[in-house]
Amino acid sequence: MATLPRQLHLNAFLRNIGQHEAAWRLPETRIAGITDIDHYIDLARTAERGKLDAIFFADHPVLKGKTEFRPFDALDPFTLVTALSGATSQIGLVSTASTTYNDPYSLARRFATLDHVSKGRAGWNIVTTANADAAANFGYPNHPDPDHRYRRADEFLQVTQKLWDSWEDDAIVGDKDAPRFVDPDKIHRIDHVGEHFSVAGPLEVPRSPQGRPVLFQAGSSEPGKDFATKYAEAIFTAQPTLEEGRDFYTDVKARIRRHGRNPDEVHILPGLSAIIGGTEAEAHALQRQLEDLTVPDYGLEQLSSIVGFPVTHDDLDRRLDFTDRQDTGTHFIKSRYALVKRMVHNEKLTVRELLLRLSGGRGHRVFAGTPEQVADTIEEWFTTGAADGFNLIPPALPSSLSAFVDHVVPELQRRGLFRTEYTGSTLRGHLGLNRPASRFTTAASAPAC
Amino acid sequence: MATLPRQLHLNAFLRNIGQHEAAWRLPETRIAGITDIDHYIDLARTAERGKLDAIFFADHPVLKGKTEFRPFDALDPFTLVTALSGATSQIGLVSTASTTYNDPYSLARRFATLDHVSKGRAGWNIVTTANADAAANFGYPNHPDPDHRYRRADEFLQVTQKLWDSWEDDAIVGDKDAPRFVDPDKIHRIDHVGEHFSVAGPLEVPRSPQGRPVLFQAGSSEPGKDFATKYAEAIFTAQPTLEEGRDFYTDVKARIRRHGRNPDEVHILPGLSAIIGGTEAEAHALQRQLEDLTVPDYGLEQLSSIVGFPVTHDDLDRRLDFTDRQDTGTHFIKSRYALVKRMVHNEKLTVRELLLRLSGGRGHRVFAGTPEQVADTIEEWFTTGAADGFNLIPPALPSSLSAFVDHVVPELQRRGLFRTEYTGSTLRGHLGLNRPASRFTTAASAPAC
Ligand SMILES: Cc1cc2nc3c(=O)[nH]c(=O)nc-3n(C[C@H](O)[C@H](O)[C@H](O)COP(=O)(O)O)c2cc1C
Ligand SMILES: Cc1cc2nc3c(=O)[nH]c(=O)nc-3n(C[C@H](O)[C@H](O)[C@H](O)COP(=O)(O)O)c2cc1C
Repeated sequence: MATLPRQLHLNAFLRNIGQHEAAWRLPETRIAGITDIDHYIDLARTAERGKLDAIFFADHPVLKGKTEFRPFDALDPFTLVTALSGATSQIGLVSTASTTYNDPYSLARRFATLDHVSKGRAGWNIVTTANADAAANFGYPNHPDPDHRYRRADEFLQVTQKLWDSWEDDAIVGDKDAPRFVDPDKIHRIDHVGEHFSVAGPLEVPRSPQGRPVLFQAGSSEPGKDFATKYAEAIFTAQPTLEEGRDFYTDVKARIRRHGRNPDEVHILPGLSAIIGGTEAEAHALQRQLEDLTVPDYGLEQLSSIVGFPVTHDDLDRRLDFTDRQDTGTHFIKSRYALVKRMVHNEKLTVRELLLRLSGGRGHRVFAGTPEQVADTIEEWFTTGAADGFNLIPPALPSSLSAFVDHVVPELQRRGLFRTEYTGSTLRGHLGLNRPASRFTTAASAPAC
Repeated sequence: MATLPRQLHLNAFLRNIGQHEAAWRLPETRIAGITDIDHYIDLARTAERGKLDAIFFADHPVLKGKTEFRPFDALDPFTLVTALSGATSQIGLVSTASTTYNDPYSLARRFATLDHVSKGRAGWNIVTTANADAAANFGYPNHPDPDHRYRRADEFLQVTQKLWDSWEDDAIVGDKDAPRFVDPDKIHRIDHVGEHFSVAGPLEVPRSPQGRPVLFQAGSSEPGKDFATKYAEAIFTAQPTLEEGRDFYTDVKARIRRHGRNPDEVHILPGLSAIIGGTEAEAHALQRQLEDLTVPDYGLEQLSSIVGFPVTHDDLDRRLDFTDRQDTGTHFIKSRYALVKRMVHNEKLTVRELLLRLSGGRGHRVFAGTPEQVADTIEEWFTTGAADGFNLIPPALPSSLSAFVDHVVPELQRRGLFRTEYTGSTLRGHLGLNRPASRFTTAASAPAC
């Protein structure tokens, strides 16, 4: 039998009622969806109907500014994705969670439990938290600097992995006659003592269906990329152009190889916010409709925080002048600053034009077109070394997700690029990833996947 | 219309595959149930079929000793109860969570989210964590002493309540034309700064259906009772005899009154582990079957840790001698120590007999009888000032829960003591508790419940 051709991996990154900052103002958008479980159940089932690899949710443990003019992720992502486990049966369930504002024992316990209750569908998108304002909700005087955050993240991952390994697969004996409930020799303390944590273990949760949840990562600074190449099994990234996408792909795959890992076992998934129309004209009309609904006050505030100096209504018809300006923000802001500067310079955009360009993707790539055109761009990135799949970020919800599932997925399936049925029921299965063995299990006793 | 007679409140406290330490050894017990979501879905639906107020789960963030000889709560309770939200539609969902090993922002965020995704069914059983071994999983050199734990718990509750209040009910405007997504004047920072926490807020979760989750509490020391009378809306307690139950009930209701609260708005719910048989003989045979399956090694270890000195196989046919012994344990252990000493003294029990007495309830009351006899004892406690309802702790799962729902519930309904249908769909509704107003809402703008 021939091996299957390389397959795309597609996740749905669900931002409340839509990624586009003006999606909430569309006539058909239901505002109450932001906190309504039925809205999210509908999205999860649509994504599962489309045979996507996973749904996933962002994590920002702080109320972001300027909520007056746009919705935000209002629900705790881990709790939300857990609640959706029962409404679905095959799709992966990925929650973002911060290594800066959690403790490793509790988080390992929750993810192992999610893996059990979802029968092997849990994934963790590891972040160190982008939004510095979060610190004030956790009694920190300041958001720790990136080096500190990534050192903590590294130790956090060591601890959680040891905890997930602390039960061997066959530790539960359940011999009613002996009597012997578990074999204590197959449950291991971890006795971790390090710079940030000391954790005795073992976890109280027996080893979960996937062994460990699938690890996703979304850092893009140097320490972020190092961390990702060490731990991640899939990498989310924002890449606005094919060229930048290829550079990132080549760079990260090479780093992974240098770390002694198999680059095929780490999927690179850029974001894609697709505005889909039956014809090209329809797609562009929908994009124009969204742009017409953007609120300049909101965009100006966002832009000011990216560039680090105030941009006002008076600037709308000018081009931003970066002469004598210096970026002083966090790296996350730094990379967006560089992006904005490049856009203004290359495309000679006024502030008004710039705001519209930023409104749809907030750093992620926006593409408007027909289902065939969307499939074409996906295929191009996938086959020319820029992506192993995509992180779909529907501009308006539920409509843009349904449009993708109903019109783009069948096109990708016709081209043989995407599964027509799930072949397994775990997230590792969908992603073609191995189930890791516990570090405490002797090779001989490790079960097959 | 006449007001309804006072109604019982019944929760199902679900301990994995059964509260009785030997339940796992019964031929019909499915060992895999311990981590199997289908087992818990079945239990939750049975409880909902019985119109119980809530299901609830314990929290012990550490693997307890002697797992070799008996099962334990293997899953994170909050994650488990969240996963069950979609499998049920009316029953309350209560998770225990520790104020010692959580931070208030994250916990408030998770409970508010659970309240949204369950449409108003969330409850929090507040504990300061009984098991001192948990400290080693969180980098604490020692489990903090009770005074410290309850001071922290008090401040923890202040913070979480402020966070749940931080959004007024009508903060989301959703005016697409204005445009105005929220009214920022109805979202409040809390700027809490205290001994243990400093938390800026607001919460990012809009106010949830119940306003705040229902607060349960299970402390029984002096600071524990003070805390409960200040915050709890329902109190779980272990009371072995009717006399002790009445004393506790009278004491706690008086304390509540002294705190200026309405004692009818705080339900006192003792534990009850009912072994049910079609006839009295059948019930006693089932109890004997369970007792015959207990493992002395396990019981001896448990007993040693309660009394604080080693009790061995050689002691099985003697009576324990407490002369010259002093209790040195935590209060939790202290109250169990006193209980054991009293039992040995009053009933002249040998160690072997004592172990059997302790095997079923682990401190909670065990009662074996017919459905009518179980209903009789419930009615007696309920009508003579010892209980507002019960915390049912089924000895074997799922069998003892089904037996209660199929045979005792109809008997209680016939007697007019228990609802035949849910009259609302929130946990506050089931418990007859008011929905609290946000402290930031002026009285005039508060919505009706
Ligand atoms: C697709 C995607 C999703 C992200 N989701 C989150 C998130 O939910 N929470 C968060 O704090 N940061 C999130 N980030 C930001 C990254 O974690 C990271 O902070 C940012 O990319 C900067 O990289 P650095 O941390 O290496 O400096 C996301 C980034 C991408 C590309
Ligand atoms: C019904 C019931 C359930 C309890 N559940 C828990 C629990 O899940 N986790 C825990 O640490 N303690 C639990 N406890 C113990 C109490 O929180 C408390 O520690 C104990 O009763 C001693 O009281 P104190 O904390 O006031 O000393 C429970 C107690 C009762 C009566």
